[in-house]
Amino acid sequence: MWEKHYWEITIRRIKYSIPFFDGDDFHPQENIDKMASGQALNDDDRHDWLVALNDLAKEQLKNNSCAIVCSALKQNYRVLLSKGIEKQTEWIHLFGSFETIYNRINARKDHFMSSEMLKSQFDTLEEPDNAIAIDVKLLPKEIIEKIKSELMEISEFGLVGLGVMGKSLCRNLANNGFKISMFNRHVEGVEENVAVGFKNEHQELSSALPFDNLQEFVNSIQKPRKIMLMVNAGKTVDIVIDDLLPHLSEGDILIDGGNSNYNKTKERFDYLKTKNIHFIGTGVSGGEEGALKGPSIMPSGDREAYKKVQPFLETIAAKDENSLPCCTYIGPEGSGHFVKMVHNGIEYAEMQLLAEIFSILSATGKNPDEIADVLESWKNEADSYLLDITIKILRKKEDNDWLVNKILDKAGNKGTGNWATIATAQLGAPSTLIASALFARYTSFYKDDRVEANKNFRTENDLNLDFSSNDLLNTYQFARIINHYQGFNLIDQASSFYKWDLNLSEIARIWTSGCIIKSCLMVELVEVLKTTNSILSNEKVIKQIKKIKPSSGKVVSQCILNEIPITCLSESLNFFNSYKTANSSANLIQAQRDYFGAHTYQRIDDDSDTFYHTNW
Amino acid sequence: MWEKHYWEITIRRIKYSIPFFDGDDFHPQENIDKMASGQALNDDDRHDWLVALNDLAKEQLKNNSCAIVCSALKQNYRVLLSKGIEKQTEWIHLFGSFETIYNRINARKDHFMSSEMLKSQFDTLEEPDNAIAIDVKLLPKEIIEKIKSELMEISEFGLVGLGVMGKSLCRNLANNGFKISMFNRHVEGVEENVAVGFKNEHQELSSALPFDNLQEFVNSIQKPRKIMLMVNAGKTVDIVIDDLLPHLSEGDILIDGGNSNYNKTKERFDYLKTKNIHFIGTGVSGGEEGALKGPSIMPSGDREAYKKVQPFLETIAAKDENSLPCCTYIGPEGSGHFVKMVHNGIEYAEMQLLAEIFSILSATGKNPDEIADVLESWKNEADSYLLDITIKILRKKEDNDWLVNKILDKAGNKGTGNWATIATAQLGAPSTLIASALFARYTSFYKDDRVEANKNFRTENDLNLDFSSNDLLNTYQFARIINHYQGFNLIDQASSFYKWDLNLSEIARIWTSGCIIKSCLMVELVEVLKTTNSILSNEKVIKQIKKIKPSSGKVVSQCILNEIPITCLSESLNFFNSYKTANSSANLIQAQRDYFGAHTYQRIDDDSDTFYHTNW
Repeated sequence: MWEKHYWEITIRRIKYSIPFFDGDDFHPQENIDKMASGQALNDDDRHDWLVALNDLAKEQLKNNSCAIVCSALKQNYRVLLSKGIEKQTEWIHLFGSFETIYNRINARKDHFMSSEMLKSQFDTLEEPDNAIAIDVKLLPKEIIEKIKSELMEISEFGLVGLGVMGKSLCRNLANNGFKISMFNRHVEGVEENVAVGFKNEHQELSSALPFDNLQEFVNSIQKPRKIMLMVNAGKTVDIVIDDLLPHLSEGDILIDGGNSNYNKTKERFDYLKTKNIHFIGTGVSGGEEGALKGPSIMPSGDREAYKKVQPFLETIAAKDENSLPCCTYIGPEGSGHFVKMVHNGIEYAEMQLLAEIFSILSATGKNPDEIADVLESWKNEADSYLLDITIKILRKKEDNDWLVNKILDKAGNKGTGNWATIATAQLGAPSTLIASALFARYTSFYKDDRVEANKNFRTENDLNLDFSSNDLLNTYQFARIINHYQGFNLIDQASSFYKWDLNLSEIARIWTSGCIIKSCLMVELVEVLKTTNSILSNEKVIKQIKKIKPSSGKVVSQCILNEIPITCLSESLNFFNSYKTANSSANLIQAQRDYFGAHTYQRIDDDSDTFYHTNW
Repeated sequence: MWEKHYWEITIRRIKYSIPFFDGDDFHPQENIDKMASGQALNDDDRHDWLVALNDLAKEQLKNNSCAIVCSALKQNYRVLLSKGIEKQTEWIHLFGSFETIYNRINARKDHFMSSEMLKSQFDTLEEPDNAIAIDVKLLPKEIIEKIKSELMEISEFGLVGLGVMGKSLCRNLANNGFKISMFNRHVEGVEENVAVGFKNEHQELSSALPFDNLQEFVNSIQKPRKIMLMVNAGKTVDIVIDDLLPHLSEGDILIDGGNSNYNKTKERFDYLKTKNIHFIGTGVSGGEEGALKGPSIMPSGDREAYKKVQPFLETIAAKDENSLPCCTYIGPEGSGHFVKMVHNGIEYAEMQLLAEIFSILSATGKNPDEIADVLESWKNEADSYLLDITIKILRKKEDNDWLVNKILDKAGNKGTGNWATIATAQLGAPSTLIASALFARYTSFYKDDRVEANKNFRTENDLNLDFSSNDLLNTYQFARIINHYQGFNLIDQASSFYKWDLNLSEIARIWTSGCIIKSCLMVELVEVLKTTNSILSNEKVIKQIKKIKPSSGKVVSQCILNEIPITCLSESLNFFNSYKTANSSANLIQAQRDYFGAHTYQRIDDDSDTFYHTNW
């Protein structure tokens, strides 16, 4: 009843593809017959119908939401209609005089409603006090505007924390047509009116709602609320969660998009579960630009909760070469943050490898522009986001010198490379290139010691380097394959250990676009990882390694003789040489352990899992 | 009063050098005058005197214990005497008839006690009900025996957990004349009567008390109890602590001698503090043999509590070249376990270096005996416990083959190498050789993958190795210096970070004997670390490195060309080359981080700590 066509339009325009239902369509035949015979329905007639609509609403809420129009005249009807979903229900009451409505009904041809029946409905009506009330006398267009302006004060998605990444994600969401609320804390004299200022800077944020009051922010978001936190990883996340909690409703969903530790994400997930709040920890990679134009997104938590945020995350994510979103449900608990941590670990090693190539080419006397030329020539075979920005960086000049030459050589780190190294140690999965890259950054921090050591250990040997640019490219590519093997192996080990059941190929796929480690190699690995979890057992990879490895031996040995530090390139070879050694010298270590600590050992001539001890 | 000379002898023989005091020596002059004039002292006269004796006892308890003889006739005197130290006080009551004592006093020449006075004392006496009661009619010798047999049921030191290390420590303590109680849990059919059986196996344990009932074990130890736990690190420690707690008294001292994680030790320290129990976490190195003959011991916790266990630990510890114990108070909290963890990390790397030398020499076609010959020839320059046992291991034959050839090449690990690597990552102190050694063990565990990779990547190149045994020795020694530099640097960083104020030279000193990493090099480092915390800035070390480093470049580069895995030897060079690079390529990494994440960077032409961001 009422003006359902307008309703439908209104709902369709305000919300994003939520289904629309006419409650009358759910009446049992007996009720329809009764009404057709001019009799008013009584409460008994209505009961099953109201329950059916309540079931319908609950079913729809599992996906997203829906709009239902129906006569909900009495308070106890409304209690039945919203049973179990009270907090997620929004009421809209179209009110009008008896005459107006009677005239409108009489103007229809396909509807049966006697004056008698309408009167009985008016007598029955108990006006709701918690509804958006709208006069039906208004023109349909005006009704739409009115409902829009009322409902539009309610956002679909909230974001807390307007730092570099938070701002980019807000603009990305708004550019994709989402109605968002944005919150940034108020810090006297430091962070004031950040959200308002940010909104005013960008055209696409014209319908976004800015807040620095947390309660108002939360109230502006429709239930179940989807609120993404883009705040500093660590204690801040817990503080923000505790600040939010009193204002949230059961079933709301918090999404942590920072680089949180995966163990912490599990803890927060468990904590919020006790409050009936869903928690999704998600990696977001792509830096400022990726976050704006389409990042790679790695969410984990409850799959059902993920479905509710899926339309937002998959819409704003980068798209792969098949136009599929670079966002996929990773797995339970903190698996999304684990995967993001390994992503960053791989990134650490990829950056360190480029820095070592830079060292080698610098040692041959090339200036940054000439080095950029070499890297440019590698694009056919080794294209990647990091190679690309390295070329741009090397070409960047300031006055008459290259900017890179003026940057202090102390490399910072913010946790994820550190955690990836710790995970490697804890899980027994040797991602040695990630560790080497981390330690190289640490060593770079010993600037004063390095300067002193440089004086103490100075040698005046002539450089003697004899290899081609292609040898160097092969060396670089070889190390990258080892790095990717180790990274995916670390994820694989975690997946087994924590029983996460992760899909490595799908993870590679969402890393083919939007993120910092996107590359041609990653595109190839999507296919490789469909048939094996170990890159090094793939035939194509084996063939490529056999081809390029000799270059690596040549380059690494020469760098060692010429004292050029190449910790990651060198480790890639040493790891590989260990990995392809069928019978290693670890037997001696087992003997030593048994000698001094009676730790026992196994024998090659006994595969029964028996442990032996020798009185040496 | 009473028979103080016998007392003194008795106490001296039972306990170990605890001071003896005659309470009469502490009477104020007024009291002495009053007694001399034949007047009995009243309670007012005695009050200050009793308080003085109580003060004396408390003062003495700070060190160890003491014996005081005095008239403690009334219950309220005894309350005063033991005020605040009730649980640490043991009462011995020498009782006798009026005649016996009166006659004895009259036989003396230098004591004033009228019959009147003695009678007043007998009238005053309220017999104690919690004292060891001994009849003075017995002969002095019998009194001694009686007290001995009563007191000797009380051990000085308890030890929980009779595994390999626990058993050796018990025998070590007993060999040094300590009266100990030994406990091992009872597990039906698996661990039954372990303590009794162990006692019966060894002559030196004849006076040790064996238990498998925890309460009886605890009650057999004198207060404040010193109980050392030699159980598996991890949850077991907490379980044993919780089992012990109900039976302990305030002021008792628990010593965890296992390889516990230093963070856990801090937690347990804090937890037990709330129960007024002292907790000392201590590293014990030396394996089975060291524990028996003298280990290196690394205790930490409250310095005052340490003083009470010091006589035990320092007595059983190994002795350095100056006969000083290889045991020293390390520092607060879990610093002892941290230092032990780094000890084990250094040990991991030292073992891996020997394994790599073994790989290289094996590749040249030498058999284990021939390799042992080479290592034997290095003893002048590179002697160490690990070198020594490696030679013995390599010479060990079984039937007609060397035993080492029959040992499966999967190297185990039990936590400390793992934790040392994690600490390195967390503290930003790159102990890269420890990490490499840990990862080499992990890689060794991929036996199946290695065998498969060996087939997939087999190459048929002739070996081409051209260096001398001396080159190899230099390479080994170079890597060892780097390993020790990194290990002590890690301790130094932890010391600063946790404000532990550790003494690196003293730590090196207690590692010169008893422990697994004792070596000539360690003896040299005791001196080096007296003047610097950074080994690599010592002139002698600089000179040595300059001499031996060229060999390392030669050996490592050839091994790389010949595909011999030498991850630790190679890393020692790469780390060093990075460490002595004044201007590294970390500037490129900073530029990359700023490019994609706006992480900012510092400039070499601005030392004001300003951070810059470029719009690349």
